[in-house]
Amino acid sequence: MNDKVLLRYGDGGKHTNLLIRNIFYKHFHNDMLVNYHDASVFDLDHGRLAFTTDSFVVKPLVFPGGDIGKLAVCGTINDLVTAGAKPLYLSCGFIIEEGFDIKLIEKIAESMGEMCRKTGVKIITGDTKVVEKGAVDGVFINTSGIGVVQAGYQPKTIQEGDQIIITGGIAEHGTTIAVERFKIKVEGNIKSDCSPLNHIIERIQPKLESIRLMKDPTRGGLATALNEIVEMSGKGIRLLEKAIPISSEVKSINELLGLDPLYHACEGRLIIIVEKQNAEEVLDEIRRCEGCEDATIIGGFDLIGVHPRVVMETYIGGRRIVSPLEADMLPRIC
Amino acid sequence: MNDKVLLRYGDGGKHTNLLIRNIFYKHFHNDMLVNYHDASVFDLDHGRLAFTTDSFVVKPLVFPGGDIGKLAVCGTINDLVTAGAKPLYLSCGFIIEEGFDIKLIEKIAESMGEMCRKTGVKIITGDTKVVEKGAVDGVFINTSGIGVVQAGYQPKTIQEGDQIIITGGIAEHGTTIAVERFKIKVEGNIKSDCSPLNHIIERIQPKLESIRLMKDPTRGGLATALNEIVEMSGKGIRLLEKAIPISSEVKSINELLGLDPLYHACEGRLIIIVEKQNAEEVLDEIRRCEGCEDATIIGGFDLIGVHPRVVMETYIGGRRIVSPLEADMLPRIC
Repeated sequence: MNDKVLLRYGDGGKHTNLLIRNIFYKHFHNDMLVNYHDASVFDLDHGRLAFTTDSFVVKPLVFPGGDIGKLAVCGTINDLVTAGAKPLYLSCGFIIEEGFDIKLIEKIAESMGEMCRKTGVKIITGDTKVVEKGAVDGVFINTSGIGVVQAGYQPKTIQEGDQIIITGGIAEHGTTIAVERFKIKVEGNIKSDCSPLNHIIERIQPKLESIRLMKDPTRGGLATALNEIVEMSGKGIRLLEKAIPISSEVKSINELLGLDPLYHACEGRLIIIVEKQNAEEVLDEIRRCEGCEDATIIGGFDLIGVHPRVVMETYIGGRRIVSPLEADMLPRIC
Repeated sequence: MNDKVLLRYGDGGKHTNLLIRNIFYKHFHNDMLVNYHDASVFDLDHGRLAFTTDSFVVKPLVFPGGDIGKLAVCGTINDLVTAGAKPLYLSCGFIIEEGFDIKLIEKIAESMGEMCRKTGVKIITGDTKVVEKGAVDGVFINTSGIGVVQAGYQPKTIQEGDQIIITGGIAEHGTTIAVERFKIKVEGNIKSDCSPLNHIIERIQPKLESIRLMKDPTRGGLATALNEIVEMSGKGIRLLEKAIPISSEVKSINELLGLDPLYHACEGRLIIIVEKQNAEEVLDEIRRCEGCEDATIIGGFDLIGVHPRVVMETYIGGRRIVSPLEADMLPRIC
């Protein structure tokens, strides 16, 4: 095999098989990924499934805390988690630019394999296309996923008083990508929060009845996700600025860049809307999950009788309406 | 909404929602495609599922007989059919270049919606990314699909004597794309065979027990698909050139271009390997399917005791080894 991806590696025949066998099968190895089949087949005992898809176009391809491969596996796993599902199977579609470095493809595939092993999720079907130089910027990946919705979980109508949990510090992924993109030098240790959240669903399984809704604040960040929940539920949110977990690095970098961390993507955080009476108990469970030590209640649906909005009580005691994303923040964040 | 796709239409927030609501929801409309959810949830009675994915990068985006949208829906449906499954649900991931014509996005979405209505398949989850000008050539689409494997179907070991059915004329898609790409003027009415094959699986349902294997000869064409079957089964194929259905247009255009139609992609044909004693009966059923009037038995696993290969008996009575695709035919065929 050449050290660059040749156009013929996308021929669908024996050259594509070189790439698939030498790289993808090696790293994605599992009992269900079988040669020659255009579709994978599996049995399921359970009846309720979740299905999701995401294309990943992040730039740069490798960043502190992850790469496009890790992001592609985690992003789709996390979308399944928001549906209350235990992620089981992924598909993986690569679109690669002619001349792309084979070693980097391998590194990306290795990241994907590592996340699969960590989470117990299997890539069971895939597709590889190679396009001529200039037709795609490096490599784009689509992952689609199937999971089994866990017993007890069903999105419910949001009630006044419901509490909002965020499972960790916000804006770390978006800020990391911004730092890389603008090539600014920063002190400290900023890295993407990109990580799989499937363990959370296992941990809070006994409490799923008290969960109204889950959402991952990716593109558009916490502000956009909360606004979508407000629009959908017709109920306003009171957000407490001082409760929102945000690292001092993230804060100072965004001050420098003139960007608002509320609109920066997270790639390893979950917003969980929970009944008031069970909120503390759910929070305790979540804090025991790896990477969720900073989980906090950041507000609630406490704005009775007003036009439904996200209103933030600021550090200095003022009130600010947090609107949905208006301007472009940063394209190709994920 | 602008008449060009703006970068902000990929923000994941309210601008993306404009695109989703005004175009995608309008054309993909069904009871399961719901606002705001990152994953779709559905119940299934049956236990055995097929899962597949394909990215589509075809150039040009619109061609005689179809466009990238039709291709994306049919391609994934057909991959599910090869697994003996009734296709049920699709995901749809768009990656769009900034500045792309909104009307063309709508035309593509309309084609996808039309194919969904024709086949009863639903797009239930999706994702839209917009990348800056030059980062992708127009629009690429990923579709992943889920289907229920039909009772009675399971790929079986190929036996000597098994017959090979092709469900219609070969090389029509690949030849159409070649004509468009090389901008050659041709007489006649060449168009892509791009079409969904789900009705075949319904038609031959009672005969599924006698089917060994199904495969769609897409990238790499009939020659590559048959070689893969030979490699997998370890059994040689005797192919009858005079039995292979091929239109006179396809034949003459490929003579002109110096290309071999055996390596051109089909996008609406199925190779079906069937037990000898049931081959004629299965063929009769297939010929009654829309678009399969030219289905034929093109050969069989009749090469006992020789090194497993695809050997074609030519028009003039000679024998020619049909090898897997060696050189690049045409990139971005699908």
